[in-house]
Amino acid sequence: MFQVIKQEGKSRRGRLTTAHGVIETPFFMPIATKGAVKSLSSMDMEALGAQILLSNTYHLMLRPGLEEIRALGGLHRFMGWEKPILTDSGGYQVFSLSRMNKITEDGVTFRSHIDGARIHLTPELSLQMQAAIGSDIRMQFDDVAAGNATYERYQDAMERSLRWAARSKQAFTASGAGPVSLPADSSPLFPPAQPVCLEEIGGPAHPPLLFGIVQGGTHEDLRQRSAEGLKEIGFDGYAIGGLSVGEPKEDCYRFTELTTRFLPEDKPRYFMGGGMPEEIVYYHSVGVDMFDCVLPTRNARHGTLFVWNEKPDGSGACVSTHKGQAPDSSFYSIKRIINEQYKFDPSPVDPHCPCELCTTVSAAYLRHLFMTQELLAYRLATLHNLTFYLRLMAELRGRE
Amino acid sequence: MFQVIKQEGKSRRGRLTTAHGVIETPFFMPIATKGAVKSLSSMDMEALGAQILLSNTYHLMLRPGLEEIRALGGLHRFMGWEKPILTDSGGYQVFSLSRMNKITEDGVTFRSHIDGARIHLTPELSLQMQAAIGSDIRMQFDDVAAGNATYERYQDAMERSLRWAARSKQAFTASGAGPVSLPADSSPLFPPAQPVCLEEIGGPAHPPLLFGIVQGGTHEDLRQRSAEGLKEIGFDGYAIGGLSVGEPKEDCYRFTELTTRFLPEDKPRYFMGGGMPEEIVYYHSVGVDMFDCVLPTRNARHGTLFVWNEKPDGSGACVSTHKGQAPDSSFYSIKRIINEQYKFDPSPVDPHCPCELCTTVSAAYLRHLFMTQELLAYRLATLHNLTFYLRLMAELRGRE
Repeated sequence: MFQVIKQEGKSRRGRLTTAHGVIETPFFMPIATKGAVKSLSSMDMEALGAQILLSNTYHLMLRPGLEEIRALGGLHRFMGWEKPILTDSGGYQVFSLSRMNKITEDGVTFRSHIDGARIHLTPELSLQMQAAIGSDIRMQFDDVAAGNATYERYQDAMERSLRWAARSKQAFTASGAGPVSLPADSSPLFPPAQPVCLEEIGGPAHPPLLFGIVQGGTHEDLRQRSAEGLKEIGFDGYAIGGLSVGEPKEDCYRFTELTTRFLPEDKPRYFMGGGMPEEIVYYHSVGVDMFDCVLPTRNARHGTLFVWNEKPDGSGACVSTHKGQAPDSSFYSIKRIINEQYKFDPSPVDPHCPCELCTTVSAAYLRHLFMTQELLAYRLATLHNLTFYLRLMAELRGRE
Repeated sequence: MFQVIKQEGKSRRGRLTTAHGVIETPFFMPIATKGAVKSLSSMDMEALGAQILLSNTYHLMLRPGLEEIRALGGLHRFMGWEKPILTDSGGYQVFSLSRMNKITEDGVTFRSHIDGARIHLTPELSLQMQAAIGSDIRMQFDDVAAGNATYERYQDAMERSLRWAARSKQAFTASGAGPVSLPADSSPLFPPAQPVCLEEIGGPAHPPLLFGIVQGGTHEDLRQRSAEGLKEIGFDGYAIGGLSVGEPKEDCYRFTELTTRFLPEDKPRYFMGGGMPEEIVYYHSVGVDMFDCVLPTRNARHGTLFVWNEKPDGSGACVSTHKGQAPDSSFYSIKRIINEQYKFDPSPVDPHCPCELCTTVSAAYLRHLFMTQELLAYRLATLHNLTFYLRLMAELRGRE
C-alpha cells in the first residue's frame, strides 16, 4: 500500500495507495470538518489539486448523523468528492470539545457540544462509524492527554490507547471485511438499523487502511513503548498523536523526530494536527509523510494570509530555498490583511501566487471584503492559503 | 445606444451599448451591494454569464469610501470585473436605511447606518461619486416616497425628483465630459483632493449613460407628469421607481404597465428593485427591458431556492411555457431546503439546472450545509438562484 520512491536523509518521497486512488507523499490534508472545507466546495478542492481531505467522525456523528450519511451512500457521495478521505476517530474532539468527558476502560462518555446529549463512544463504535462514512484511511480510537499532563496521566492514556488500538483493529477488521453492523441499542444516534454491506452503500472496492496513533506525551520511554506496542498489533500506517496540544514547541519538534525513529520505514507516518509551514518542512525532514492542520483555513477566515518571500536575487518566490534541518520560516511572510497599510494597496496579496485572489483582485479589495464582512472574503482567503500549503507540499515532493 | 431588435406586443428584445460592452436586453442585474455579489467573485459572475452588475453608491461611499475607490482606479478594477456596472444614486438607500433622514431642496441629510456619521447627499455629489466609481449606467438622485404615502407626499417627492433630475443631468454632463472635481469641503468622506480626469482613473473611453427615474407613487397623473418632465430633460434610459416599496402588488403591476405607456419607445426601460420570476416575466411583457432584485441572492442565503417545474409531458423544465400576460408563477416552485423532507433526499435540488449545486451534490447535502451554517451553503445556493434568474432572462430573450 505504501512505497518509498526516494529517500534523502530521513525525508522520503513516496506513494500511498488507497481505495479512492494513489496519493503522492508527502501530502497535506485540508480539513473538511463537517463534510465541507469551510467556504469551499468539492469542485474547488479538485481545482486546487488537493489529493485527499480529512473529515471529523465526531462532527459527522452529531450532524447530519451517521444514519443519514449511510443512507446517502457514504461521505464521498454525500459531498461529491471522488478522491480519498481520511477520518479521525473522534478521540481528539472528545478531548478538546466535549463537556463532562468521562473515561473508562470501555470508552468515553461525553456530552455533545451542540445540544448536550449524552454519548458513549468506544473503539468499536468509532470504527463502525468510520466504516459507515466509508473513509479510505481510518484512525484508531485513542485517549489524548493534555500537553501539560503528569507522567502518570501520559502513561495511563498511552497504555489505554494501546488497548483501544487492539480493539480498534479488531472492529476495523470486522467492519472492513464484512457487513457494517451497528448495534441497535448503542446510542440514541443509532436507531435500529439492518447491517449494511460496504458494497451496498457504495463503499470502496479496495480495502480501507487503518492507522495506529503513538501517544506518550513528552516522555521518550512512553513514546517508545507506544510505538512498539502498535507495531506488534500491526497497522497500515502510524500517526504521531498527542503533540501540538499545549506542550512547548521545542518539545513538539524533538518528540516528533524521536518518535519517527521508533516507526517502521515501510509504513507512512502521519503528524496529526500540525502545523505552520516551517514545521511541516521540518517534520518532513525527519521522516513524516502526512499532515493535516486547521491553520491555512482558520487563519484565512481571520484575514491572516501566507505569502511567499522573494528570492534574494528577485527571481521569484523562494519556495525551493528552505532546507528544513530545523524549523525556519524565512521563506514566507504573514499578511494581516485588515491592517491599515493595505487600504490603498493595488498590488496582489502575493505576486507569486496563481490563485483566484492573487490573479484577479488587489490586497485593498480583499481588505475591503474583510472590513465589510463579505462572505467572499473567507472564500478568496481560504483558496489562497490552501494554494500556499498545497504548493509547499508539491515543492517538498519535487525536491526529493 | 439602444436598439430594439424585435418587438412582440409591448415586449422587446434589444441591445444596449455601454462603455464596457454591449448588453442583450431584457437583462437582470445581480446585486453587488458593496462591490461583491454576496458570497461570489467576479470570476463566478463571469462564469454564470451575468452581463452587468449593479452596485450601490451609498454603500461604497461609506465603505471603502470614494477616495479609496478613486485611488484604486474605479470599481471595475477594484473588484476585477470588466463588464458593465450600473450604480444607483443612493436615493433609495437613504430612504430605506438611514436614520434622521432630513430632506431639503438642496439634498438629503442623514446619518450613516454604520457609525451614525452625518452626511449630506445632493444630486451633484451623487453623480460625482458615480463618476468616481466609473459606472457605465448612472442613475439620477431621487426622492423616494413610501408605498403608503399621501397624494401630497407623492406629488412633492415626484416634483423634487424632477428638479433633482435636471441637476443630476447637469452634474453628469460636467463629470462625464470633463474632469471629475469633488468639492473639497462637501463632506468628511471627501478629504481635499485634486480634480481627476476620467481617463486618469481608468474611466471609460465610451461615454457613460444617465437614466432618469419616474416617480409618482400610485397616481396616474403624477406618473404621467413625472415621465413627461424627464423626457423634456432627456435621458439615455428611464427607470420606473417608487414601486415595490410597500404598495399592494396589484398596484405595482398596474402602475408599471401604465408608466411604460408614458416612456419613449427608443430608450431602455428599467424596473427598479423587482421582483419574483413571474413578475419579471410580466413586466417584460408590458415593455420593461432591465431588472435588478435582491431576491435570488437574499433568498439563497436563507435557504429558499427557485426550481423549474417539469413540463406536463416530462420533457424537461417548463422554462418556455410561461406567457406573461399576467403574473403567473406556475413555471417554477420554491424549495425551503431546511425542511425535514430534504433530510434524506439524494436527488439534486433541481434536476433541470446546470449549476454546481445541482450537478455535484444532493438536496440532503445542501440541507446539511445550512443546518451546520457552513459558508459553502450560501455560495452554492446563490450560484443556483442566479443561474435560475439568468436563465429566465435568456429564455425571455430567446422567445422574441
